[in-house]
Amino acid sequence: MAKESTLDKVTNLAKRRGFVFQSGEIYGGSRSAWDYGPLGTELKENIKAEWWQTFVRGRGDMVGLDSAIILPAAVWKASGHVETFTDPLVESLHTHRRYRADHLIEAYEAKHGHPPENGLADIRDPETGQPGKWTEPQQFSGLMKTYLGPVDNQEGLHYLRPETAQGIFVNFANVVTSARRKPPFGIGQIGKAFRNEITPGNFIFRTREFEQMEIEYFVPPEKAGEWFDQWVEACEAWFTDLGLNPENLRRFDVPEDERAHYSASTIDLEYRFGFQGSEWGELMGIANRTDYDLGTHIKNSGKELSYFDQASGERYVPYVIEPSFGLTRSMMAFLVDAYTEDEAPNTKGGTDVRTVLKLHPKLAPVKAAVLPLSKKSELAGPAQQLADSLRRHWNIDYDDSGAIGRRYRRQDEIGTPFCITVDFDTLEDQAVTIRDRDLMTQERVALDQVQRYLAEKLLG
Amino acid sequence: MAKESTLDKVTNLAKRRGFVFQSGEIYGGSRSAWDYGPLGTELKENIKAEWWQTFVRGRGDMVGLDSAIILPAAVWKASGHVETFTDPLVESLHTHRRYRADHLIEAYEAKHGHPPENGLADIRDPETGQPGKWTEPQQFSGLMKTYLGPVDNQEGLHYLRPETAQGIFVNFANVVTSARRKPPFGIGQIGKAFRNEITPGNFIFRTREFEQMEIEYFVPPEKAGEWFDQWVEACEAWFTDLGLNPENLRRFDVPEDERAHYSASTIDLEYRFGFQGSEWGELMGIANRTDYDLGTHIKNSGKELSYFDQASGERYVPYVIEPSFGLTRSMMAFLVDAYTEDEAPNTKGGTDVRTVLKLHPKLAPVKAAVLPLSKKSELAGPAQQLADSLRRHWNIDYDDSGAIGRRYRRQDEIGTPFCITVDFDTLEDQAVTIRDRDLMTQERVALDQVQRYLAEKLLG
Repeated sequence: MAKESTLDKVTNLAKRRGFVFQSGEIYGGSRSAWDYGPLGTELKENIKAEWWQTFVRGRGDMVGLDSAIILPAAVWKASGHVETFTDPLVESLHTHRRYRADHLIEAYEAKHGHPPENGLADIRDPETGQPGKWTEPQQFSGLMKTYLGPVDNQEGLHYLRPETAQGIFVNFANVVTSARRKPPFGIGQIGKAFRNEITPGNFIFRTREFEQMEIEYFVPPEKAGEWFDQWVEACEAWFTDLGLNPENLRRFDVPEDERAHYSASTIDLEYRFGFQGSEWGELMGIANRTDYDLGTHIKNSGKELSYFDQASGERYVPYVIEPSFGLTRSMMAFLVDAYTEDEAPNTKGGTDVRTVLKLHPKLAPVKAAVLPLSKKSELAGPAQQLADSLRRHWNIDYDDSGAIGRRYRRQDEIGTPFCITVDFDTLEDQAVTIRDRDLMTQERVALDQVQRYLAEKLLG
Repeated sequence: MAKESTLDKVTNLAKRRGFVFQSGEIYGGSRSAWDYGPLGTELKENIKAEWWQTFVRGRGDMVGLDSAIILPAAVWKASGHVETFTDPLVESLHTHRRYRADHLIEAYEAKHGHPPENGLADIRDPETGQPGKWTEPQQFSGLMKTYLGPVDNQEGLHYLRPETAQGIFVNFANVVTSARRKPPFGIGQIGKAFRNEITPGNFIFRTREFEQMEIEYFVPPEKAGEWFDQWVEACEAWFTDLGLNPENLRRFDVPEDERAHYSASTIDLEYRFGFQGSEWGELMGIANRTDYDLGTHIKNSGKELSYFDQASGERYVPYVIEPSFGLTRSMMAFLVDAYTEDEAPNTKGGTDVRTVLKLHPKLAPVKAAVLPLSKKSELAGPAQQLADSLRRHWNIDYDDSGAIGRRYRRQDEIGTPFCITVDFDTLEDQAVTIRDRDLMTQERVALDQVQRYLAEKLLG
């Protein structure tokens, strides 16, 4: 049997401990989306909070936005998505299932070492194994549609956004006016996006419903190259400052024929997820969208979305540098990167293998666990009191069942930086023992100093 | 001309200052949804953060969840939404437009003081004024549908959730197992929901795309009444603790024939929004959903969603108390409640009317504004430095244009609790003047004490 990969281990841990559940599991489940359980929700919220603080609240040149998911078809016609956000699909005449033509050809090439000589005619039906019989490739839209209002007609046709970006572009003039901004400045947004992927997969990596964290940064055209480089650096630094190992991160300069229709240059940051076949996967991309989006909205809406620079007396359409982060992909990368197996002392004087998520304390879903050595009320009382007081500041776990070593393991496995043991000495010395997740050292800390102790460690 | 209502003033302020923009405005706009600008996004984030802290992180008996927006049709069939989440619609044979039959009859009654004697036959076409000719009422679904996968067929049919609640119910067993929980305990979730409202309106009050903050609190059946009462209190307290005037809040005990299909009792909290016609509007509801939802999912999925209580040796299906908050409605209530016109001294020794949003400091979108008295670099340098250092903790504005009085007005109008003036004395005494939004008092504070000063005032 093949050795379980780190990715498999992380996936199993995530499901077992309630980071991620299969969506609609009790009805057979869906591959389109995942639900985030108690720990996954906290981890995801922490990633969002760090991103917002670093890139929006923490910068004088950024503001936030939160635009609607469902936008009229006119926006997506103007943006080019209705026409170009498509994949070539073929249908098998044997099974009437549909496949991406380019994926079938890639798979053939991977297997045989050369492309099929006669195109699709050489490719067998993936399900039945018969010599394939295929329809001509047809363009299939990756946009999800829905109808608003009382009738399902053209007037009611709307699309769920495949990127949060367009909500920013159509509000460009609103933000410039109401927030009194001038380039260079940017607008950040976190939110859901929807793409009708033909082949969702790889756990939370490729789903039809997903979350993005996007920045559209507006600059004078001649400054676009400089800002592009700055943003690539800033994005990389965000991941590594939050503990991602730089060796698992690389840049991929996307060649012209693989870039999105709006981009003049794109650098993807790829993370070493450890997928079967190709180890690396796209974590985020930084694109130079030029004046494509504002330009196309000017043309299609007839509105003035250029910027008049009073200092120079010039009017111009800003260029846009777009750092676009996958939120759920970021979460998956942080989890894979944090997954560690090391050795911890056991009660027999030897060592056991322990699983520990070495998440950055800022990201850890639970900041501290309060562990009374006994369920008796004399310990439960002060322990509950301590937990409640710490909950005013952080997400805190309370666990009073099982041997203390086992409780440590449960917390290590979900990345809790600190375990606080309340024991019978606590009743005498009004102090508790705080154990460090990574160092496994223990320190005795006075009860009334615990909050300060954690605040210093968690902010540092 | 009618006097501008507070609601109108708040709506205009919200649009002008970038709290809320019309969605898709440059393409004619949509009544289905609104976009939240820089200030609205911060205000909304602050409301979410306070809710999450109060009801999820801050409580030992609650955990969070974040489930998918799009769920398979099977979930919505089981929940009863496909069958019962409908409105009666009629179509005018003159214009082929559709209307809610009950709304047409209500409007007739409001105008004539009595119901139409001959039913719809008495009602004129709202558009043409002709004597009405109507189709028979047909049930129209409030669910928005979309198709996943390569073909638009029954297999691909999914619905956008009309409430976040079902995502919680279908994950009940997952949470109990992975988070080791037992009733009484609750699951909280914040997220978007979608309803195909026939008549969206009243600014951000009724939209087709909106945000909810929902709690499903699972209890032993015999404890349902007690917990219902506790949750009504807790919800009311949340609003008033964040500054909402209790006089603008009231309870409405929803009669049986107006309750949702799942509810055994519902209390709505209503806020005095000041709508034309009916002043009050529903802010949130607390419902006793009994074992309806878990029961129906047990029946339809065949899975075990009951709870086995080891202490008593009994197995039971928990009852659910559901406090369901409208996030955008809460935001609207906080804005209306905070809107104040009072008097402020002007430079001529008299007073001017000033507009001020007396938002709770925890909710205020901007916590402090740094205002250098001159644009000269000797002041801009230290002012920028101060702003940057404060941005590590809060959302901070920087404004160096116009008279200082005018800058105060701009900040008052968006509810900024503190204005920090950097003047030429600052270069001598290393101190700044901090002005309080509500008291309009000014205090001289040492530069190196500003952060501590704000931290105390903002947390207090």
